[in-house]
Amino acid sequence: MTHIAQYRETFIKYLEEKIIINEPKNLYEPIIYILQLGGKRLRPVLTLMTAEIFGTSHKEALNAALAVEVFHNFSLVHDDIMDDAPLRRGKVTVHEKWDINTGILSGDAMLILAYQLFENYDGATFRALAELFSKTAIEVCEGQQYDIDFETRNDVTIPEYLKMIEYKTAVLVGAAMKMGALVAKASEKDAQGIYDFGRYLGLAFQLQDDYLDAYGDPETFGKQVGGDIIENKKTYLYLKALKNSSEENREKLIQLFSEQPEDATEKINAVMEIFNESKAPEAIKTAIEDYTSKAFKLLQTLNIGDTEKQSLKSFGAQLMNRTV
Amino acid sequence: MTHIAQYRETFIKYLEEKIIINEPKNLYEPIIYILQLGGKRLRPVLTLMTAEIFGTSHKEALNAALAVEVFHNFSLVHDDIMDDAPLRRGKVTVHEKWDINTGILSGDAMLILAYQLFENYDGATFRALAELFSKTAIEVCEGQQYDIDFETRNDVTIPEYLKMIEYKTAVLVGAAMKMGALVAKASEKDAQGIYDFGRYLGLAFQLQDDYLDAYGDPETFGKQVGGDIIENKKTYLYLKALKNSSEENREKLIQLFSEQPEDATEKINAVMEIFNESKAPEAIKTAIEDYTSKAFKLLQTLNIGDTEKQSLKSFGAQLMNRTV
Repeated sequence: MTHIAQYRETFIKYLEEKIIINEPKNLYEPIIYILQLGGKRLRPVLTLMTAEIFGTSHKEALNAALAVEVFHNFSLVHDDIMDDAPLRRGKVTVHEKWDINTGILSGDAMLILAYQLFENYDGATFRALAELFSKTAIEVCEGQQYDIDFETRNDVTIPEYLKMIEYKTAVLVGAAMKMGALVAKASEKDAQGIYDFGRYLGLAFQLQDDYLDAYGDPETFGKQVGGDIIENKKTYLYLKALKNSSEENREKLIQLFSEQPEDATEKINAVMEIFNESKAPEAIKTAIEDYTSKAFKLLQTLNIGDTEKQSLKSFGAQLMNRTV
Repeated sequence: MTHIAQYRETFIKYLEEKIIINEPKNLYEPIIYILQLGGKRLRPVLTLMTAEIFGTSHKEALNAALAVEVFHNFSLVHDDIMDDAPLRRGKVTVHEKWDINTGILSGDAMLILAYQLFENYDGATFRALAELFSKTAIEVCEGQQYDIDFETRNDVTIPEYLKMIEYKTAVLVGAAMKMGALVAKASEKDAQGIYDFGRYLGLAFQLQDDYLDAYGDPETFGKQVGGDIIENKKTYLYLKALKNSSEENREKLIQLFSEQPEDATEKINAVMEIFNESKAPEAIKTAIEDYTSKAFKLLQTLNIGDTEKQSLKSFGAQLMNRTV
């Protein structure tokens, strides 16, 4: 983890150097605000790490990493407007601190600024980065739209749900890694391999989010356990339980997910009981393991040294053994 | 004008072929809706026309022209949310027909789709188009922010106002033409020349908008004459009148621009009287002529034939002699 911590530190320093206040202030201040709110910086760290793994200094990948982080924060600013979210990383959201119009316009500018960061690369790399970025960005928009659509649909299937989280979350993890490979001018096969590695890990990561939200240790989880249940979020657990339950439990679950009682304790308990009976937690654990082992198998096909494979593997394992 | 009409027709046909419905429908339907609302298609026509002027078939420029139009419509969708506008081109706006979230997300997708259209060009052209596009797009965002800022400021200067309309409107006209030159692989000098030609014409066009809004012929103008006065919009006429009026008229004008009476007839008359006394209409006409003649002078420096220069000139003259 020392490497990861170092990449994070280098990245944050670079971000603070590059993202400076510009005119008009009302456009650029919210951009600086959201970019300095913190967060794990997982995606840019992956870009830097991947460049090194393919034999190029992580310093070469700083602009691509920054593009990924700026894009990620663009999507947070616009998503927070759409979700009417008051808080992000424990701090007030952009549209709450300023207003919705500021959130829209600053977000738009961030999307453009992300593209501009690729201009620091030579012709072929510039094009490869920009094309990957556009493809990924449009998928993230599609994923967000599916997520919104699913809120009012009662017939969402598990494959549809998996596609939604793949687009909304996993493809950006894959793209963050592939960008490191593109900067390092890795072969197409390796670039695609590391993309799929990131995408599978991203899927596993998001499913683990679903799992921990219901089954995480309240002592270590950080967020309120049962948050998704309180908000009637149709996670993998919910969809699996719906699919594998008796008619009686299915109706009960649908009923429970139409309510928002002030004290949610009873609701959470009732839902968890149905989850458990349907073996949804076992199913999601299997799915997480499947995606993780798919990712690890891909590692074998990459043209990199064993040390590099090992460090990618231990990074993945660490990600999957998290409790928060 | 037959050329212009032909370019428009070719462009609309291409747009209808390329912009097809995709999944998720709720993301792509609003995109198709706004792109098919009509409009003058001025910017994409300029791209096609400029490609021909620099010796390349306008067909080669169709994707760049479409990118310009998709971007322009992205900015309309997001601006209409910010302005809370119910109508666009006489039809209901995207955020009114669907909702604000749909407007935000579909707009985001359009910005990305515009970039993707450049992927149809070879390496050097792709890069030149994408870089010009990013620079222009960020300026359009900055222009929109200045416009918002000016609403609540009482000390806007005329140079600040000119910068705002340059960024919000004129640079995209310049970029639309420069893209045609880039597709035609014109020299850097010519590409920059045609950019400045378009930018100056864009400035003249926008100032003429300000002029016609107050002094247009109600018979032919189409919109309500005095609309900017009713909405207390700080146009060039207002800023010039403020600058060149007696202390008494200045105070009267500021007072009038703080009111929104139900029947605006008296207000419009009072404001127009101050405009006239301050010689604001003469000043704006001079500014329009200055920008137009700057544009026309630039034509002389371009490495194109006299026929081409003439057709650009007559296009500019036509634009400037419009009554609507």
